[in-house]
Amino acid sequence: MALGEFELIRRYFSPAAGASPGAGVVLGVGDDAALLSMPSGCELVAAVDSIVAGRHFLPSASPHSIGYRSLAVNLSDLAAMGATPAWATLALTVPSAQEPWLAEFARGFLELAQRFSVSLVGGDTTAGPLTISVQLLGHVPSGTALRRDGARAGDWLAVTGTLGDAAAGLGLASERVTRLRAAQREEFGAGELELMRRFEYPQPRVEFGLAARGIATAAMDISDGLAGDLPKLIAASDCAARVEVERIPLSSALRGHLAQDAARRCALGGGDDYELLCTVPESRFADLQKKASALGLLLTSIGRIEAGSGVHWTCDGRAFGPDSAGFDHFR
Amino acid sequence: MALGEFELIRRYFSPAAGASPGAGVVLGVGDDAALLSMPSGCELVAAVDSIVAGRHFLPSASPHSIGYRSLAVNLSDLAAMGATPAWATLALTVPSAQEPWLAEFARGFLELAQRFSVSLVGGDTTAGPLTISVQLLGHVPSGTALRRDGARAGDWLAVTGTLGDAAAGLGLASERVTRLRAAQREEFGAGELELMRRFEYPQPRVEFGLAARGIATAAMDISDGLAGDLPKLIAASDCAARVEVERIPLSSALRGHLAQDAARRCALGGGDDYELLCTVPESRFADLQKKASALGLLLTSIGRIEAGSGVHWTCDGRAFGPDSAGFDHFR
Repeated sequence: MALGEFELIRRYFSPAAGASPGAGVVLGVGDDAALLSMPSGCELVAAVDSIVAGRHFLPSASPHSIGYRSLAVNLSDLAAMGATPAWATLALTVPSAQEPWLAEFARGFLELAQRFSVSLVGGDTTAGPLTISVQLLGHVPSGTALRRDGARAGDWLAVTGTLGDAAAGLGLASERVTRLRAAQREEFGAGELELMRRFEYPQPRVEFGLAARGIATAAMDISDGLAGDLPKLIAASDCAARVEVERIPLSSALRGHLAQDAARRCALGGGDDYELLCTVPESRFADLQKKASALGLLLTSIGRIEAGSGVHWTCDGRAFGPDSAGFDHFR
Repeated sequence: MALGEFELIRRYFSPAAGASPGAGVVLGVGDDAALLSMPSGCELVAAVDSIVAGRHFLPSASPHSIGYRSLAVNLSDLAAMGATPAWATLALTVPSAQEPWLAEFARGFLELAQRFSVSLVGGDTTAGPLTISVQLLGHVPSGTALRRDGARAGDWLAVTGTLGDAAAGLGLASERVTRLRAAQREEFGAGELELMRRFEYPQPRVEFGLAARGIATAAMDISDGLAGDLPKLIAASDCAARVEVERIPLSSALRGHLAQDAARRCALGGGDDYELLCTVPESRFADLQKKASALGLLLTSIGRIEAGSGVHWTCDGRAFGPDSAGFDHFR
């Protein structure tokens, strides 16, 4: 690599380059390991997520969006725990240290890090095929984390924001579509650009996760799609769920782009929205919805938790879901 | 991939497969993030290191040694801080989930994890070119960590173990040498096998790091070779160092394998030994040497810290080092 690990991290990820000043950072980048000071009475929360070219982002994605995304997917994990993010380490494998690429990557990463007061406290740069692995550390008052195993029969099942946008956006951003559009000199409309942006720049629901502590009984982020993720939550909580698919919130951009049935399939099967799925006692739902609203965020009840096991998907009173006709080809 | 992320981690990295039971683990693998309980009065210590095929290990390396090494290099970082390792997360990018490979990789990783009571609390598996990134978390009583910036003029400069073995072992393990040997039906001798083992299975000096707390004034691990790493320590401590190269400890295996001058160059320039470099007040050196000895480990004084800047390398009273003749071709 043209630049050594140390110099690279210093040049692009130092506080001077826009990194956060570092609450709780006793010793940051530059020693064998970072030294961090935890707030008292808290548990440490640790998540790790890697993103790989061609699998988690398009080969044509901008380095700015790749940097942003590598942190966003981890922030979403901490949001799902109701945790306050604090410190990140970055393991960056890049084919070669091309400075313009690295500068843009760092800008995307640091923009989001600053927004959530996350300090980059360690890093590792190696030459190799592009892989980005971020470990995010945070904290939560002991015993208050939102886990997957707390859902109880009778709870309402709710989601933040709108679902399916990112999946539709990914389709639009694919090389085949963009090339076709270019050939026809046809520009993307505002709704289409909004869907593509939802894929490229997911908004981690950190503030909502914090607000849901003490109210939601369970939570997780939707990274693999509702149809893939909800079964994990109910398995962890040892219960069943009933989902009324017609209540799943769809954005006007998605409704303008796809027919209703296709939009619903995007909402069920498409990951990458990074919205939160949570369960809430019926008596507390209005309270949580008010908190979401104060954050400018939708919170929509889409069904209920029941005793038993498995998910029962219905749409307008009829079976609709991964196990019913019309859903076969999705996953 | 043939196996999903969740199933893979459960199958090969569960306690049943030999993982540690998990001190301080409130919630391990299986939720959006891990929940960990820190001992009171401690600072959190976080390190990350990636290893990439062809760069940090030979393409022919056994998956067992790769799994071992991915954790060992991080344990070495925590050892250099005087920290107690506790929890790890693993970001594993593999071309495809070949079960025999994964089983051996996990066995190597978990053998070392068990030895140091490290729990694997999170992981991420993606399909792609082989890259392994481990984040290791641990703790140290607040204010007692061994840092790079504490060396003072007059301190003795010391290293654990012997240097240069891994660099010589890497040369022996290279494809060219092994093929040549096979063609000549010439087997590796015991000393050669020992050198190769030093490269493949570095021994992180965790217990020594703990013992050196309160005695050593600064420490770091030697991962890039003494000639590459010592300048980082003295730059952080704003001082100079004088090294008497003839005092650098060389193993009998290395002395049997290489002429003296070549062996010394291996010791100065070769990384991968993962021994610790530390500075110790003269009055405390014997005490620390006794502690090392109780761990079955050599601790050798190789020079002194002085006021000023830069490293002065001498051998038998003559200049010898990266900036002197005879060393040109090494780095």
